Amino acid sequence: MYRSHSCGELRASHINTEVTLAGWVQKSRDKGFMVWVDLRDRYGITQLIFDEARTPTAMMDKAKSLGREFVIQVTGTVIERESKNAKMATGNVEVLVSKLEILNQALTPPFTIEDMTDGGEDIRMKYRYLDIRRNPVKDSLIFRHKVSMEVRKYLSDQEFIEVETPYLIKSTPEGARDFVVPSRMNEGQFYALPQSPQTFKQLLMVGGMDKYFQIVKCFRDEDLRADRQPEFTQIDCEMAFVEQEDILNIFEGLTRHLLKEINGVEVAEFPRMLYDDAMKMYGNDKPDIRFGMEFGELNTVAQHKEFGVFNNAELVVGIAVPGGNAYTRKEIDKLIDWVRRPQVGALGMVYCRVNDDVTFKSSVDKFYDQEDLAKWAAATNAKPGDLICVLSGETNKVRAQLSALRMELAERLGLRDPKVFAPLWVIDFPLLELDEETGHYHAMHHPFTSPKPGQLELLDTDPGAVKANAYDLVLNGNEIGGGSIRIHDKQIQATMLRHLGFSEEEARAQFGFLMDAFEYGAPPHGGLAFGLDRLVAILGGQETIRDFIAFPKNNSGRDVMIDAPAFLDNDQLKELGLI
Amino acid sequence: MYRSHSCGELRASHINTEVTLAGWVQKSRDKGFMVWVDLRDRYGITQLIFDEARTPTAMMDKAKSLGREFVIQVTGTVIERESKNAKMATGNVEVLVSKLEILNQALTPPFTIEDMTDGGEDIRMKYRYLDIRRNPVKDSLIFRHKVSMEVRKYLSDQEFIEVETPYLIKSTPEGARDFVVPSRMNEGQFYALPQSPQTFKQLLMVGGMDKYFQIVKCFRDEDLRADRQPEFTQIDCEMAFVEQEDILNIFEGLTRHLLKEINGVEVAEFPRMLYDDAMKMYGNDKPDIRFGMEFGELNTVAQHKEFGVFNNAELVVGIAVPGGNAYTRKEIDKLIDWVRRPQVGALGMVYCRVNDDVTFKSSVDKFYDQEDLAKWAAATNAKPGDLICVLSGETNKVRAQLSALRMELAERLGLRDPKVFAPLWVIDFPLLELDEETGHYHAMHHPFTSPKPGQLELLDTDPGAVKANAYDLVLNGNEIGGGSIRIHDKQIQATMLRHLGFSEEEARAQFGFLMDAFEYGAPPHGGLAFGLDRLVAILGGQETIRDFIAFPKNNSGRDVMIDAPAFLDNDQLKELGLI
Repeated sequence: MYRSHSCGELRASHINTEVTLAGWVQKSRDKGFMVWVDLRDRYGITQLIFDEARTPTAMMDKAKSLGREFVIQVTGTVIERESKNAKMATGNVEVLVSKLEILNQALTPPFTIEDMTDGGEDIRMKYRYLDIRRNPVKDSLIFRHKVSMEVRKYLSDQEFIEVETPYLIKSTPEGARDFVVPSRMNEGQFYALPQSPQTFKQLLMVGGMDKYFQIVKCFRDEDLRADRQPEFTQIDCEMAFVEQEDILNIFEGLTRHLLKEINGVEVAEFPRMLYDDAMKMYGNDKPDIRFGMEFGELNTVAQHKEFGVFNNAELVVGIAVPGGNAYTRKEIDKLIDWVRRPQVGALGMVYCRVNDDVTFKSSVDKFYDQEDLAKWAAATNAKPGDLICVLSGETNKVRAQLSALRMELAERLGLRDPKVFAPLWVIDFPLLELDEETGHYHAMHHPFTSPKPGQLELLDTDPGAVKANAYDLVLNGNEIGGGSIRIHDKQIQATMLRHLGFSEEEARAQFGFLMDAFEYGAPPHGGLAFGLDRLVAILGGQETIRDFIAFPKNNSGRDVMIDAPAFLDNDQLKELGLI
Repeated sequence: MYRSHSCGELRASHINTEVTLAGWVQKSRDKGFMVWVDLRDRYGITQLIFDEARTPTAMMDKAKSLGREFVIQVTGTVIERESKNAKMATGNVEVLVSKLEILNQALTPPFTIEDMTDGGEDIRMKYRYLDIRRNPVKDSLIFRHKVSMEVRKYLSDQEFIEVETPYLIKSTPEGARDFVVPSRMNEGQFYALPQSPQTFKQLLMVGGMDKYFQIVKCFRDEDLRADRQPEFTQIDCEMAFVEQEDILNIFEGLTRHLLKEINGVEVAEFPRMLYDDAMKMYGNDKPDIRFGMEFGELNTVAQHKEFGVFNNAELVVGIAVPGGNAYTRKEIDKLIDWVRRPQVGALGMVYCRVNDDVTFKSSVDKFYDQEDLAKWAAATNAKPGDLICVLSGETNKVRAQLSALRMELAERLGLRDPKVFAPLWVIDFPLLELDEETGHYHAMHHPFTSPKPGQLELLDTDPGAVKANAYDLVLNGNEIGGGSIRIHDKQIQATMLRHLGFSEEEARAQFGFLMDAFEYGAPPHGGLAFGLDRLVAILGGQETIRDFIAFPKNNSGRDVMIDAPAFLDNDQLKELGLI
């Protein structure tokens, strides 16, 4: 036993108790005749005191020699502090040390182990084990554990069974790239790491498991964007004998449970929005509805004058920025520069000030009169004091651009409060998505998603119009989960794969086992998967996932701490049949 | 909603309720004027009834058309059964069907979906999704879920934090072979899949996480023996500021909790046995102590006569087989044949009958008199009616041989009752193990295991004698967990790696990050890992793990259901830089 108590545990009630503590030296203050040391462990900080009057000289010297992050063990008596610290849980007491042992020395850490550290991202990643000592990272990992435990508890109470599916599976070129694993015992052959346990969870439904879940690592070999990881964690779920409604209810229940247990927030029934409406009103299939600024489409009220830019546009659409009339001309010009950045890609922006007296002043007054602009204000729900920002162009592009602007402005206006939670179901996603490069349609969700009843016929005539039994759960502008009702009929699955461009042989080679399974009594089924990393970050009030992952990789997919990936020696490559 | 109730739910209290059920046709009995169908889902079986008098003809015909494993949905009224079935939870009622829908047809399954199936191992693996419908497999998976939940609950209550460590790490040639993963973004470089999260959990201790656990997949590319899987699951645990005693207590607590919650068995304090004693008394470092038959060493009482076989042996050792005097000469000859099988490898076996009148009859009466044999009986603790079996030879070999015989006889005698649980700590393992082929010592546990205090010096003079702070938890003759107190001092770790034959460069390349971490304030720490697959199987009263894994691989490491591993196409190989 290295300790009788943790460093977060001692209170006034412990005064006069003899205790043994162990931990790290957070800091020490040496006043010559007195030395205070803050001793830290996972549970908190306790102040130690050494003083000339009560501490033997040798120990006093040893106390003075303690550097930051030394690992020590002390025994001593809990005494009342003279100057109490109400901000610390242990702030009423300190430990007068009678025995001090240095368990391990420490070099000076390359950055400060404080909530606000002086270390940059790169150095903190290299010394991640030191970064984890900092409260923001440590608390994020503990927070993640709590969320995972609550997820398991809730689903288990709902009779879901956690089943471990295999990690060494078969490569399926559909979707993102697979990471593959050469098989030594089957030369020239490869396993693949799962992008998700999709087919296995469907097979579990065929197997009668009825309700399945798994918190599971998934792998995608993508060119990494910021805040993406090659390995990530899903809460993967599937249910048999269900319709979309059943699934929405169950996972709304789970999400509500988490918000309540983890965040202490009670949320009303989640609103539901059609995919088409989300695109129309927010330009985005994962709208942040913590705030308004819904899109107002202006084609009918802006394409009747001589302004060619609008007249030639497929879509003219605006948003009202609350209080935006206060922006100076210079600020508005900066906003225009912002939307013209290549990352956003608008050609320009028309704006219209809404004055307090409900008169209007626009950048296109040459073309539009007060009556016209009043209609813009009505369409965008602009109030006196607002600024209407209007973009125009090709529908999909302009929606994406205005969506980016909406989020940027909301951020600047402080409307994205991380303590407010606005969940939303987006439903009726399209079944297929057109790849503009190849001109081919591919599955928007995945090839196992079922079309809405009666829409299968549309596949031949108007594939882009077919809607799917697919849904996303959106929280604060982030997709935190998505799923679908699956196809459970072999013929429909075959039709779908044919439409996705699979030859019969390809379909057979890749999904033969699933098609076979469908012949032996497959029940109707569907499911959903949450992105745990993202979910945890949002519940934790953060936008980035990295602090919620113990050992993340950088944007090149490297673990800079252990320096992986790395070269193998030739013996190993030979044995694997790779050279 | 496809159902109002599950197939395991209806009781007499539901009589006259209208219900909707969905599931699989387990079997149907067609008496012409009446058809009974057993409808099955995960939760149970409910009997459906269709009869001429009450069922419309069209539905009657449809009911008669139902084949095994068809997926159907029925609505009907719960009625009292005429002939009740006390063996079924739903045996008091049946459902008089008013609406029948076939949700999916089914081909006749390739084996019967019954507890005792007619399907062989191979076909059941190929159609694992059908095998999972069978109670023994389904119940095993549910059992595994329950064990995992209890493990998490217990450890979380003890303030352990589950932290997910990465799967894409770096290859370390020490130990078993790694599975590797080529990195597309870092050409020519490879990740490795973890054989265990060993170094990461140690870094979490350096990071102050204090108590860590994870239920985690691990990977070993070994030539598979029966009942080994290339991917397997560990309950991986680590604690800081602990001594061996603390760890034994915590995980004894966990194991006791599982035995109580899962099996309803209360177990007393776990006995502890020195590794050396286990080898001496059972010839084995994971003795099954559900039964006796401890070894009796006979050198002093068998090497004083003219029997050269014994006199030339390093060890003469025997066990007393309870009631073995009843064996016929033929049976004993078969036993001798058994120990001479190449898998066991003994050259022969000497035996000695203990008669009821406490006289002895041995196969070496030429050399030993009654007085000698009485001493053998005393040493092996043989009782009247027993048979003493004696092997001799080189110590390590003869112990392994006699251990095999002991287990075989216990099996035959029914002494290995799966409902009896006999846990045992085996402690003080040797630090190093001699590789007889190379003449080199390697780490018996792993290179991070600390030697017993004060034994570091022995490394130079008598490395084989150094004992480690290493321990195994043994349950019913299986190692279900093992761990050690780790080295937390950089110098000692460096010394250890040098003794294990690592050059300074190799040590640096492979474990540099860990050695660095030890310089920044590493606390004393240690841990343990349970093999979850094995643990669950034993708690479930089984000797083999396969039914407790949803989608196991065969002995060639293949998943025969999905047919993996498989060949990749050239595009994929090119992109990965493999051709």
